[in-house]
Amino acid sequence: MYRNSTEVGELSEPRRGPGRPRLSEVDERILDAATDLLRDLGPGAVHIDAVASRSGVARTTVYRRYRDRRELLAATLERVTDPGGPPLEGGPEDKLRRVLERVRTVIEEGLGRGGVAAVLTGADPEFTQALRTALARRLDPLMQEMASDAAQGVLRPDVDPDALVNLAFGSYLAELLRYGEERPDWLDRTVELLHRAAGG
Amino acid sequence: MYRNSTEVGELSEPRRGPGRPRLSEVDERILDAATDLLRDLGPGAVHIDAVASRSGVARTTVYRRYRDRRELLAATLERVTDPGGPPLEGGPEDKLRRVLERVRTVIEEGLGRGGVAAVLTGADPEFTQALRTALARRLDPLMQEMASDAAQGVLRPDVDPDALVNLAFGSYLAELLRYGEERPDWLDRTVELLHRAAGG
Repeated sequence: MYRNSTEVGELSEPRRGPGRPRLSEVDERILDAATDLLRDLGPGAVHIDAVASRSGVARTTVYRRYRDRRELLAATLERVTDPGGPPLEGGPEDKLRRVLERVRTVIEEGLGRGGVAAVLTGADPEFTQALRTALARRLDPLMQEMASDAAQGVLRPDVDPDALVNLAFGSYLAELLRYGEERPDWLDRTVELLHRAAGG
Repeated sequence: MYRNSTEVGELSEPRRGPGRPRLSEVDERILDAATDLLRDLGPGAVHIDAVASRSGVARTTVYRRYRDRRELLAATLERVTDPGGPPLEGGPEDKLRRVLERVRTVIEEGLGRGGVAAVLTGADPEFTQALRTALARRLDPLMQEMASDAAQGVLRPDVDPDALVNLAFGSYLAELLRYGEERPDWLDRTVELLHRAAGG
C-alpha cells in the first residue's frame, strides 16, 4: 500500500484548509487504490472497475462518488500532485530544495514514471488532460509565491517563475533519463544552480 | 523521410572528422529507416527485419553491417544524438541557446517522445543502455567545453556542467509535460534563466 492508515492520518493534516474537506475513509481507500495502480502499472490501469477491485470498495459505491473515469482521474491526480509535507519556509535555498523534493515525491510516489511517459507520448488523452489541470492548480500558487518572494527581495526581482518551475521539474526528469536513478548529490547540486539562477 | 538525399549531403558535412568516416549511401538508408521507426513508432519498432523492410536494403546486407539489434541501436543512437549543425560559438547566451536547440532537435527529430518515454519507464533495457552510452559520448565533450569556458571566464568559474546539462535537457521535457508543445517564448526565457545560473 502507498500509505498505511497511520500515515494517512499524519499526511492528510496539511491538506485540510478552506475548500478542502478531509477525505472520508472510503475516499481514502479508493484514491489509495487508484494511486497504487497509477504508480505501479501506469495510467492505463486506472479504471473504476480496477479501482473497486483493488480497494475492496463496492463498485456502486465508487460510481456514486466518481461518475466516470474522468472524475476518478481528476480526484486521483489532485491528490497525487499534492505531496503534502511542511509549507515552504526559510530562505531561497530552503524553498528551492523543498520544491525539488516535492517534484521527486510527486513523480516517485504518485504519478510514477509510467504516468510521465504516458503524458509525453500522448498515449492517454483523458489522463493527460487531468494531469495538466491538476499540475496547473498546484503550480499556480507556487509561482505566485515565487513572484511574491521576488517582490520582497528573497528571489531576484526579475525572476521568471514559470521557467524556473520547468527547470526544477525537468532537472529530475533529465536525471532519470541520463542515470536511471537520482544520484546522491543531485539535490544539492541542483539547489545550488537554481539558487544562482533565481536567488535575490 | 527524416532526411531527403539533398539534406543528407548538407547535414553530414559537419560530422566528418577524425574517426568519423562519412557513411556510405547504404548505411545512410539503413540508419534513416531506423531513425524513422524510432521517432514514429518508438524503440520497440527498431529491429533489423523492420529496418531492412523499411529501407529496402537486403536483410543480409543489414546483418553484414550490424550483427544484432544491439549494434544497430548503437549506430542509430550515435547518429540521433548528434544533431549536427554549426559548432558552439559566441558568448555564453549564444552557446546556451544552441545547446537548448540541440536538445530539441535530438528529441523531436531523433529519439522521439516514445524514445524518451521508453527510457523513463525502463521498457526496453537494450535501448536504454544504447541511449545512455550515446548520450554520454555527446555530453562529455559538451561538459568539457563548459568547464573550459568557465576557466576562461565565459561561464562562472564554479559552474557545474553536469547539473547545467540536466537543466537544459529537463527544461524541454518539462515544457512538453506541462504544455504538450514548446511555447513560442520557451527558448528565450530558458536561455535567460540558464545564463543567470551559469554566466560568467
